[in-house]
Amino acid sequence: MSGSTFGELFRVTNFGESHGPAIGCVIDGCPPGLVLSEADIQPELDRRRPGTSRHVTQRQEADAVEILSGVHEGLTTGTPICLLIRNTDPRSKDYGNLLDTFRPGHADYTYWRKYGLRDPRGGGRSSARLTAPSVAAGAVARKWLGEQMGVSLRGWMSALGDIEIPFVDEGEIARNAFFAPDAAVVPRLEAYMDALRKSGDSVGACVTVVARGVPPGLGEPLYDKLDADIAHAMMGINAVKGVEIGDGFAVVRQRGSEHGDELTPDGFASNHAGGVLGGISSGQDIVVRLAIKPTSSIRLPKASIDRSGAATTVVTHGRHDPCVGIRATPIAEAMLALVLMDHVLRHRAQCSDVRLPVPPIAARVPRP
Amino acid sequence: MSGSTFGELFRVTNFGESHGPAIGCVIDGCPPGLVLSEADIQPELDRRRPGTSRHVTQRQEADAVEILSGVHEGLTTGTPICLLIRNTDPRSKDYGNLLDTFRPGHADYTYWRKYGLRDPRGGGRSSARLTAPSVAAGAVARKWLGEQMGVSLRGWMSALGDIEIPFVDEGEIARNAFFAPDAAVVPRLEAYMDALRKSGDSVGACVTVVARGVPPGLGEPLYDKLDADIAHAMMGINAVKGVEIGDGFAVVRQRGSEHGDELTPDGFASNHAGGVLGGISSGQDIVVRLAIKPTSSIRLPKASIDRSGAATTVVTHGRHDPCVGIRATPIAEAMLALVLMDHVLRHRAQCSDVRLPVPPIAARVPRP
Amino acid sequence: MSGSTFGELFRVTNFGESHGPAIGCVIDGCPPGLVLSEADIQPELDRRRPGTSRHVTQRQEADAVEILSGVHEGLTTGTPICLLIRNTDPRSKDYGNLLDTFRPGHADYTYWRKYGLRDPRGGGRSSARLTAPSVAAGAVARKWLGEQMGVSLRGWMSALGDIEIPFVDEGEIARNAFFAPDAAVVPRLEAYMDALRKSGDSVGACVTVVARGVPPGLGEPLYDKLDADIAHAMMGINAVKGVEIGDGFAVVRQRGSEHGDELTPDGFASNHAGGVLGGISSGQDIVVRLAIKPTSSIRLPKASIDRSGAATTVVTHGRHDPCVGIRATPIAEAMLALVLMDHVLRHRAQCSDVRLPVPPIAARVPRP
Amino acid sequence: MSGSTFGELFRVTNFGESHGPAIGCVIDGCPPGLVLSEADIQPELDRRRPGTSRHVTQRQEADAVEILSGVHEGLTTGTPICLLIRNTDPRSKDYGNLLDTFRPGHADYTYWRKYGLRDPRGGGRSSARLTAPSVAAGAVARKWLGEQMGVSLRGWMSALGDIEIPFVDEGEIARNAFFAPDAAVVPRLEAYMDALRKSGDSVGACVTVVARGVPPGLGEPLYDKLDADIAHAMMGINAVKGVEIGDGFAVVRQRGSEHGDELTPDGFASNHAGGVLGGISSGQDIVVRLAIKPTSSIRLPKASIDRSGAATTVVTHGRHDPCVGIRATPIAEAMLALVLMDHVLRHRAQCSDVRLPVPPIAARVPRP
Repeated sequence: MSGSTFGELFRVTNFGESHGPAIGCVIDGCPPGLVLSEADIQPELDRRRPGTSRHVTQRQEADAVEILSGVHEGLTTGTPICLLIRNTDPRSKDYGNLLDTFRPGHADYTYWRKYGLRDPRGGGRSSARLTAPSVAAGAVARKWLGEQMGVSLRGWMSALGDIEIPFVDEGEIARNAFFAPDAAVVPRLEAYMDALRKSGDSVGACVTVVARGVPPGLGEPLYDKLDADIAHAMMGINAVKGVEIGDGFAVVRQRGSEHGDELTPDGFASNHAGGVLGGISSGQDIVVRLAIKPTSSIRLPKASIDRSGAATTVVTHGRHDPCVGIRATPIAEAMLALVLMDHVLRHRAQCSDVRLPVPPIAARVPRP
Repeated sequence: MSGSTFGELFRVTNFGESHGPAIGCVIDGCPPGLVLSEADIQPELDRRRPGTSRHVTQRQEADAVEILSGVHEGLTTGTPICLLIRNTDPRSKDYGNLLDTFRPGHADYTYWRKYGLRDPRGGGRSSARLTAPSVAAGAVARKWLGEQMGVSLRGWMSALGDIEIPFVDEGEIARNAFFAPDAAVVPRLEAYMDALRKSGDSVGACVTVVARGVPPGLGEPLYDKLDADIAHAMMGINAVKGVEIGDGFAVVRQRGSEHGDELTPDGFASNHAGGVLGGISSGQDIVVRLAIKPTSSIRLPKASIDRSGAATTVVTHGRHDPCVGIRATPIAEAMLALVLMDHVLRHRAQCSDVRLPVPPIAARVPRP
Repeated sequence: MSGSTFGELFRVTNFGESHGPAIGCVIDGCPPGLVLSEADIQPELDRRRPGTSRHVTQRQEADAVEILSGVHEGLTTGTPICLLIRNTDPRSKDYGNLLDTFRPGHADYTYWRKYGLRDPRGGGRSSARLTAPSVAAGAVARKWLGEQMGVSLRGWMSALGDIEIPFVDEGEIARNAFFAPDAAVVPRLEAYMDALRKSGDSVGACVTVVARGVPPGLGEPLYDKLDADIAHAMMGINAVKGVEIGDGFAVVRQRGSEHGDELTPDGFASNHAGGVLGGISSGQDIVVRLAIKPTSSIRLPKASIDRSGAATTVVTHGRHDPCVGIRATPIAEAMLALVLMDHVLRHRAQCSDVRLPVPPIAARVPRP
Repeated sequence: MSGSTFGELFRVTNFGESHGPAIGCVIDGCPPGLVLSEADIQPELDRRRPGTSRHVTQRQEADAVEILSGVHEGLTTGTPICLLIRNTDPRSKDYGNLLDTFRPGHADYTYWRKYGLRDPRGGGRSSARLTAPSVAAGAVARKWLGEQMGVSLRGWMSALGDIEIPFVDEGEIARNAFFAPDAAVVPRLEAYMDALRKSGDSVGACVTVVARGVPPGLGEPLYDKLDADIAHAMMGINAVKGVEIGDGFAVVRQRGSEHGDELTPDGFASNHAGGVLGGISSGQDIVVRLAIKPTSSIRLPKASIDRSGAATTVVTHGRHDPCVGIRATPIAEAMLALVLMDHVLRHRAQCSDVRLPVPPIAARVPRP
């Protein structure tokens, strides 16, 4: 049961390989009547696109998206939306020497053992390139969530290797190559990355994503809690090794008297929970953090084996991101949008008759 | 779409409320021919059971499981297995004063906003009591995984509040009330908990779970990666706020030259990945860590609101765990067993024809 | 992937065997706020119950349903509803001689080949007794559909063996043991059944079910069309071998000029389509017909084989329905209710924002 | 929850509209290692293709399929297979006059009421053109089933309007435009269709499909029985109004002594059941019959209404099949292949450990 479909009601089926003719996805279940064109999707793909600064892979891909179905005269019709992105710069010769060996930290070995064969060109199906269709689908979800529900999403890099990045100015995020919310730290990040690239090594990163304006009530306990589904979405992004909601691992040392967010007539007094209580959104900001491992493709030699099991050494050439975390911000936003969109539809399927006498309390202390 | 079913092929449907007549689950998709009786399940329930030491809730529940279907003459028949656990000690009067107010940190408010009404007795559906059916189902998965695949699971407490618990002796885990793998630290844990209980407060914890003997090849990219599904399972456990696979958040500061686990003819040389590469098991140990928040039920007063939106103060009486993390270990093991079981079935559905010329490499450096 | 769950959003998971301790189901996804007690469900179970006339099996089962979860103070809470029915009259000795042989027309052989073992007592899982939980779940769906949507369901027997049963008087259906809508035909049916019982043989039947008041718009093309899901539900009922929607097999000889139902400002001018166009409900009555095979348990000897493959002869003793079609009417109604309920939730998940300037046209020619 | 995905493990997600840029599907879950190219799929599309004789629609579509993913060096990789078919002859002007009105017997009215808007060009999503991706996916399933399991599928037209078509010669099916297994009847069919075309009317048809070599054990009771899933697949094909398994509606008049297929050491003595007992394949031929309604697009005027609800008259011009049943044979074969493929994977997920001491009995009396 190959798991290339994401979501229960807003269902995204992803297809394609890094160096095949095309990648893309089919969105099934989008509500009808949404104004939609390629122009709504392309900007999100452009934020994720390779080749935009010297700090990311130099592969040149236009990542131009084409809507093949599901939209008529500029409106979604409720039928499946197929989004197609042609691959235009697949330099497969770059990877020729890796056909028979398994790159440490990569999925080469595990794909081979699972399927018995694999498409080795550019990482094939396991390439981070396959996040592009997710970003495209996320753009559709995001547009609907914004227009129908007033939900907005915002992500940023909160740490790059040893450098913690403070949340100073949200407006700055879009103005630098790192999605860093602090102009002052950018020169340090640039110098750090330049040195890293020179050394042939790579480094990890931490990304934070926040969703604002999420109504209370989203999430389907007992198992498909909102935070559980967010964790599923985030841990499924290439290279992610940790996910936190709200205070995350800091809760280990917290006391209950400190952690439990008090409710007041004006709203919650704090947001340690990160917007989710008992697996259901509370109306506060949803706050998520991800840990992204250092790129496994590095120019330094590492020990490995080949398909016969014999020892060998691997050095990765070709075009790679020295920190995959840099381009992870739009991906994390997209995945959060997909989770929220799916849960809005799930919630209204079961509970759209629910009427309460008082409106939800506001989020009094929105955290960045 | 209420998400009370876990898994795609080994499907566990959970039902019940804390103070209703019974809780339980239906397991659909269990392979036929497994020797199974209540005696295989009860020990796991007993490990999770309340009232077993002074450090956990004093609610007395036998948690006696009854198999209602799916087993004939001691063997599973391949048809649904219904497991029933009668509630025997529901002191609903303990919660009477909380009918109309929302306890900070609890799901009271969010359940009410989602469904428009809720069963307030003992937390109703959001009670940690509902992890018992998951543990029961996990015991079935665990037995099959052990007998058919040689997979074993082991969890322990790795931190309690400020106290880090070193992994010293696996045999010790079963000998103390904390699931702590170090006899020396137990007196400190006891003193810590006694002081905490006296103060009326609660504290967080960290639990580690490891699965050994997992074959390579489990996991269904692009979205249902093994680590993604583990994250979904773990973040869905009550009170969990963070999940890590392998090195987790430590990867943020790592270099690629350090992180990528080298392969040798004798096995992997390290296990930073935690047994998953590209979302597929590598044959190494699966290593997972969870952060569990402090119990929200504390005897210290907190501000809140009532259903009309007016300010009020909440003090929780009744019987509660001052550290829910203590009983989380068998739950985390059970959820990991459920994920692995489901993925074994998913994998063999698609890939059971795959034949490779060389056996999987061994895990040369098994981490605790 | 054992398929014991019915529905996508209103999900019914069925468990139990004919002679085990209990049968039942878990309903996940029921909207909250529905007034519900056992008294809403029991009457439907009583209509299906064995032992109510001399024309059906003489097994005596109270089929008393118990709600174990999901209802608090008389209202559904939106959490899973577990319905339990204890088996009270399982005379397993009746079946002792069939342990090792395969009854012709029964599932004995196929269950054995699939699972490698089976519970032979009373047909085990393949017994028609397992339709009782579906009927119980259908009663919940039916209540919600009636109260929230004004949908009503009505089934009847339209043929018993060679006897065609005309639709004369809907009120008569509840007044005879055959669910026959014509008092005049009842004496013939009784004589027919008495002779059949004496001969030790069995006979087939035809049942018609109609749903009225179904709003237009239900159904999820391309594959989960409303009629496709109805066919799935009906063909899945024990002993059903054929399903028709609207004119059914009569369409083979029809001309397009005759078949296509004309639309008028006052409604559709005919209902050859049976209420479904392009897989979506039109607002007309949904009309379904089922063919039910003769019971395979007969007192006449038939050739068969045993588990070693050797030839043998089978004669069925015990308590059986000489025409399973007689009790099929409430089952077919229940399954239709489950399909409609699920599709109402599916529809409103995706399309609840749809607003049209004119109301649906009425069904001008409601067919029986 | 738009239902454009078919299958649980071999999952086909269909997209596209009749007159959009392209139609196609994504197959997720195909076992790896299958030799596959466009040449394996194209012949099945050609069998279904319009414009191949004067008796079907004159729309000219090459229906050339392109594999966009999931195949590397001629082998399936286990990752999603995207199949794309560009639309090349969409004469939308043909339908211009139908933008605002609802054609009787068509899905125009129901799509509009469901989604609030629709793509009217050529029937949009409800066009029979959307069966092409199902046929393409079916070709992949069929190849795997044939090579791995020895399963073969064969369909034919068994009635056209009033003309019953006897099963005389299987080899003849491929030699005439009607998929008729009898050369002698073909001139009658041609004359019938010529007269019908001249009259501007259309007619229904009956198609039979048989699967041979299906192993016993396929099917997932209680709800996803093999026959239930076949009924779902078949009733979901455009214009189908009835489905029968084995003797179908003839069982109403049968006695149990006649219907139950006896087992002998050499195989089953008859096949009234159509290869399914208790929802599980018996190893006999699977026999399915479908009733296909007359095309709703006819040149004779019919009464209807427009979007404002006012009365109008509709006459369909454009290119249409006077009997959609003619092209239904390859579609029915494809859908049956998809159901069997999915159930093979489902079965081996749960039951691949089952070992029995004796082989399945043969099908002694294979029915056509």
